[in-house]
Amino acid sequence: MSRGRTGTLIIIGGHENKDDDPLILKEIVRRVDDGKLVVATVAAEQPDEMWDDYERVFRRLGVKHLYKLDVESREDACSDRKVQILHDADAVFFTGGDQLKITTLLGASPICERLREIYHGGGTICGTSAGASVMSDTMLVGGGGDDGSARVGHTVRMAPGLALMSDVLIDQHFAERGRVGRLLGAVAQNPRLLGIGIDENTAIVMTGGRRFQVLGDGAVYAFNAWNMTYANLTEESHDRALSMFGTRVDVLSQGDVYDLATRTPTNHPAHEVEEQLETA
Amino acid sequence: MSRGRTGTLIIIGGHENKDDDPLILKEIVRRVDDGKLVVATVAAEQPDEMWDDYERVFRRLGVKHLYKLDVESREDACSDRKVQILHDADAVFFTGGDQLKITTLLGASPICERLREIYHGGGTICGTSAGASVMSDTMLVGGGGDDGSARVGHTVRMAPGLALMSDVLIDQHFAERGRVGRLLGAVAQNPRLLGIGIDENTAIVMTGGRRFQVLGDGAVYAFNAWNMTYANLTEESHDRALSMFGTRVDVLSQGDVYDLATRTPTNHPAHEVEEQLETA
Repeated sequence: MSRGRTGTLIIIGGHENKDDDPLILKEIVRRVDDGKLVVATVAAEQPDEMWDDYERVFRRLGVKHLYKLDVESREDACSDRKVQILHDADAVFFTGGDQLKITTLLGASPICERLREIYHGGGTICGTSAGASVMSDTMLVGGGGDDGSARVGHTVRMAPGLALMSDVLIDQHFAERGRVGRLLGAVAQNPRLLGIGIDENTAIVMTGGRRFQVLGDGAVYAFNAWNMTYANLTEESHDRALSMFGTRVDVLSQGDVYDLATRTPTNHPAHEVEEQLETA
Repeated sequence: MSRGRTGTLIIIGGHENKDDDPLILKEIVRRVDDGKLVVATVAAEQPDEMWDDYERVFRRLGVKHLYKLDVESREDACSDRKVQILHDADAVFFTGGDQLKITTLLGASPICERLREIYHGGGTICGTSAGASVMSDTMLVGGGGDDGSARVGHTVRMAPGLALMSDVLIDQHFAERGRVGRLLGAVAQNPRLLGIGIDENTAIVMTGGRRFQVLGDGAVYAFNAWNMTYANLTEESHDRALSMFGTRVDVLSQGDVYDLATRTPTNHPAHEVEEQLETA
């Protein structure tokens, strides 16, 4: 694996296939090559069961150096024993669960520092569901979708994430859980952030810190509010619905590439995706 | 009620409040004034129960001249007895159910003709859920959302609607049922159509055939693909996800007005909505 350059982020919208055609997990395994993969179950409520699932599939896909990282306390996150698990890791995979568990336990810890070193040394950091949300500097933690008020833009809750990407907000299970309201509501709060909604069994593969390509069988929605002309966030009470005018949405499917710097999509045939990932 | 001009369409995203604060139904009642309101249960699987619910709430809100229109066959839709129910009606309200029931039963029937006369004579045509979808010349009938593949844009099914509005596609239960994928997929098939996604307990009130105003506690999403730069609909197989670049989305909440001719939103304070509807 090449080192000394920004690596790869593989950010998954949840429920990636583990049995028939685990395309996204295969892509992770391809990047790990003969190296070391660490599965971080920090977000999970049942870390052991989560580990069993991923251990089974990653072993089946041929990963030889597979390790589990679970962290149960801040003390744990600072212990040499846990930090050591990440030593020489080529890839780290964050499972789903509760994204706040990841950040409250790992934030400012030596583990977090190691993650950044792995990524900026050319390694691969992956996350699915909650593990996807934590990738950005600001992350979604609730509001809309989960509590039944899918449509309310004002009550979106955000928190500081692991900051491996900046200027984006990731939302997962996107079409499946009807999260357009909450993601748009979050983007309206600061159009600096690009809202990225990722469907289940769908991933963005970001290389070089600037472009991502879509992998998987769903869609990825990019909400760009740079040219937003109006939002009602400061003028009305908190319980009213969102008004937000002039956002651009690009819908991307497998193969398509998005440039985060210029916020422009480019289409590519779905079948070329593996070759393109190869040369990315 | 004024006659001789295009009337009003009140198009509701489903699940409008019937008990506490039935704002949208009150607006219908206000427009009926002392006139005649016909509740069309044509779409409903259980028309009698549906009628009981609406009879109760409309009576409570003071409607004196309240009639039920149910149609069970094409023959029924052509019978004088049924057509007569619409005689002198000031407003017609279509309940939810199955939108294809409405169009297969009423399409090209004298009832349909009467509806158009009522509307173009200054009357009010209302619909909720399935009754909302039928308002346009082309309507959504399935695909995405309902069958669990919320995200797939290609498999959207459409059918000819009642054609009281043109150049739009209405989707209901919008944020609640995660229908962004199916509505965008439908709009990508022909950007002539503006995609209008309406949340539950939320309505658009269209007057004069050109502008609508939002009423209710959710949001209305307008997807304008006039400037769409790419869609993958013709190039790939039917089972792949949607690519669609360069759509504009405007999110509107109560009070906001949208001009269908220019496709531009204008913001208005939520509390002004009743006064504005008064003078619309």
